[in-house]
Amino acid sequence: MATTDKPIAVVIGAGDHLGSAIARRFAREGFHLVITRRRGDLDGLRAEITALGSSATAIHSDARDEAQVSELIDQVEAELGPIRVAVFNVGGNVRFDICETTTRVYRKVWEMCALAGFLVGREVAKKMLARNEGTILFTGASASLRGGRGFAAFAGGKHALRALAQSMARELGPQGIHVAHVVVDGLIRNEATAEFLPDLYASKGDGGIVEPDDLAEIYWQLHRQPRSAWTFEQDARPFSESW
Amino acid sequence: MATTDKPIAVVIGAGDHLGSAIARRFAREGFHLVITRRRGDLDGLRAEITALGSSATAIHSDARDEAQVSELIDQVEAELGPIRVAVFNVGGNVRFDICETTTRVYRKVWEMCALAGFLVGREVAKKMLARNEGTILFTGASASLRGGRGFAAFAGGKHALRALAQSMARELGPQGIHVAHVVVDGLIRNEATAEFLPDLYASKGDGGIVEPDDLAEIYWQLHRQPRSAWTFEQDARPFSESW
Amino acid sequence: MATTDKPIAVVIGAGDHLGSAIARRFAREGFHLVITRRRGDLDGLRAEITALGSSATAIHSDARDEAQVSELIDQVEAELGPIRVAVFNVGGNVRFDICETTTRVYRKVWEMCALAGFLVGREVAKKMLARNEGTILFTGASASLRGGRGFAAFAGGKHALRALAQSMARELGPQGIHVAHVVVDGLIRNEATAEFLPDLYASKGDGGIVEPDDLAEIYWQLHRQPRSAWTFEQDARPFSESW
Amino acid sequence: MATTDKPIAVVIGAGDHLGSAIARRFAREGFHLVITRRRGDLDGLRAEITALGSSATAIHSDARDEAQVSELIDQVEAELGPIRVAVFNVGGNVRFDICETTTRVYRKVWEMCALAGFLVGREVAKKMLARNEGTILFTGASASLRGGRGFAAFAGGKHALRALAQSMARELGPQGIHVAHVVVDGLIRNEATAEFLPDLYASKGDGGIVEPDDLAEIYWQLHRQPRSAWTFEQDARPFSESW
Repeated sequence: MATTDKPIAVVIGAGDHLGSAIARRFAREGFHLVITRRRGDLDGLRAEITALGSSATAIHSDARDEAQVSELIDQVEAELGPIRVAVFNVGGNVRFDICETTTRVYRKVWEMCALAGFLVGREVAKKMLARNEGTILFTGASASLRGGRGFAAFAGGKHALRALAQSMARELGPQGIHVAHVVVDGLIRNEATAEFLPDLYASKGDGGIVEPDDLAEIYWQLHRQPRSAWTFEQDARPFSESW
Repeated sequence: MATTDKPIAVVIGAGDHLGSAIARRFAREGFHLVITRRRGDLDGLRAEITALGSSATAIHSDARDEAQVSELIDQVEAELGPIRVAVFNVGGNVRFDICETTTRVYRKVWEMCALAGFLVGREVAKKMLARNEGTILFTGASASLRGGRGFAAFAGGKHALRALAQSMARELGPQGIHVAHVVVDGLIRNEATAEFLPDLYASKGDGGIVEPDDLAEIYWQLHRQPRSAWTFEQDARPFSESW
Repeated sequence: MATTDKPIAVVIGAGDHLGSAIARRFAREGFHLVITRRRGDLDGLRAEITALGSSATAIHSDARDEAQVSELIDQVEAELGPIRVAVFNVGGNVRFDICETTTRVYRKVWEMCALAGFLVGREVAKKMLARNEGTILFTGASASLRGGRGFAAFAGGKHALRALAQSMARELGPQGIHVAHVVVDGLIRNEATAEFLPDLYASKGDGGIVEPDDLAEIYWQLHRQPRSAWTFEQDARPFSESW
Repeated sequence: MATTDKPIAVVIGAGDHLGSAIARRFAREGFHLVITRRRGDLDGLRAEITALGSSATAIHSDARDEAQVSELIDQVEAELGPIRVAVFNVGGNVRFDICETTTRVYRKVWEMCALAGFLVGREVAKKMLARNEGTILFTGASASLRGGRGFAAFAGGKHALRALAQSMARELGPQGIHVAHVVVDGLIRNEATAEFLPDLYASKGDGGIVEPDDLAEIYWQLHRQPRSAWTFEQDARPFSESW
């Protein structure tokens, strides 16, 4: 890794539109970004960040793998500097009726949503606790708060992630670490979805789909909060969303 | 009322430290403030707003009185211009065991917390619906989410206010009006409290008491949200608060 | 009032199908019932209770009126005996968009749902605290937990009632008084509704409408609970209800 | 397995005091019990059930193992008859600060609380769906609703189990299967705990510890509910418990 004297923000799960937008948002504020995903392109996002005048380190790393997460966080802290902000943005939305949910799917969704969040949260907390400073942000969903037909696996993983975030917030807040959970409700704009579901997109109208940049602003504002008024949880949805 | 070409923000319940801080926060963004409280000084706050380079109209008005609320909102819209933001910040925290809670107290707390919120919310909504635009922000408390010994009256009023905010958000969001609810948990800094409870203040330490200006920032950020990512509810507490 | 040596159960709001069913359920267990409603027939219910082999005192009393509630509870305790169970079953479901909700409606719904619940709960608690024994049961609705378009008034009243019940449960439980809250979700069978909405009833099918007697069983079971395992809150809905 | 003409209830996790009490409660109503635990004695419970005049099949089976769960449920249905009631009562309460929570513990607690619940729930649902009839009951805890310091693993597992139960209830209710979730708050009486924590037990006083038989009654009442008034969720705690 190249060295940097910028503050460090790590975005775990930078492969989707929200992860990319969060990375760009912090880059605009002068952060050096560590952007990770399990596999797939990260060069495009790194180039965007460079174009914004900041810098990024792109790493392929599997957030469900203890050794990889531990090594990633150790390496960032050793070579780049102290992590100021860590964003956990991995998830895996699936929808199957209970009898069609395979054990493999049930386990895999939990590993992506909850186990990975635990590994990242714990490894980052270890570093931040030594400094009594830092922000850890988790991406939730409406399934974090409510189960529903077809959502045994996804709501299970997201409920567990919320329990993790709340447990960490209650333990780590008094030690100076701000842990927060963003409950995203509604479709996030995404070219793949837009192509497959043109009618749905058209029906939503202007502002009816979550714009990743608008959502990313919430992550930035959470990080900015002074410690006399920390938010643990905040929801976000398009104005026209039924909820 | 003097005329203004600035955008208008109304803060109902500007008499306390949070209300004042919210008013100043919007003033810094170039809003003309309409600041109200039932009685007591508003000149100090108006002077602060003027010192920040903006302007304010101070009005004594009882938010529990339908005629006064209706007249207030009508007059602001007729003489000053369209209300862009309305903040309802009235409350009345009391603590009595159930058998010591008088009917007068129970009713009065509801009138301050819920009836007044309803009157302000409804009258402002009528104006904003004609433009499909505007932000309405309500101040909640941890008692909005949880009853407890001694809190039958206060939790009742705050629960009712949250039900109002949620009902309004679900109805008015799709019509372009952003309704949000801030759940404040913990003591807000306040000279009167500080004087009466010096030991408590000392024990909380730096950042252990909610700073009104830090909390006011949340109201401003809520108003700034683009409609593709609106928050309905957000909590806020000092880092060291046990919850 | 006639005297009785049976244990006493008071049902406030015995005029609807649920109230009647609760009264009958306790009558079957040998309770003397005190059945109240503001106005309207109570003779039919009293006759049903007599036919079940028990006895009842029917009283017209306005649960929103402090003097009437206080007098009612005093009189029952003085003339009939200690109240073992009190059920508060008054409510007033209305649905209006926020701008069509009059102040009169908003206030009246709160008085029926919350103020009346407070008056009954407090007056009964005073008596039960002297004995460290008794059960107080409140009827809630899905609007107790969730606001929605059109529900500012009803959800407000029901949220406030839930806050009351929770505050009372936390205060009075350790003093030996069991306070519980039943969240009813779905339509309760009722001849008036059946007549006005025959298609809806038909569409719901067998078991798709809440049977008052089935719901009343929950109230009885709550009263029966030994104090090592008290329930505060329990929901109930037809099997086919979407929620 | 011996054959039976009694209705069948399966208790998964019958090794603890609550599981045993639930098994006895259904035995008293004439059910044949299938009692399972991973390992350890089941003969004592089987003898108790026989002494109550009913019968039981005791099976050692690991609820976290898909093949074992599937075989268990298949075998019960093939050899004993249709399962009327299934109770999932496995859990594993642990308490570690976030940085002391090993990946092994985090995973294992989830496997016990959530994966096992999923496997049992799904396999039983497959059978019950063919008959559109049956009751599935899950044991929750206060950690099902709230995270806290030290509870990242346990609250994660219990939150996920609740999401499963809610997702199943919403899907399977309309198909005639009653799914419910009991939130147990407080210490359950247990000789092992009593021996290790005599002062705690003494301090709780009479009724201050959850009696397994009192809690088991709730499971029986849930099963008894007619489908016009099904409860999804119900909490239970000792009268003196602070919550």
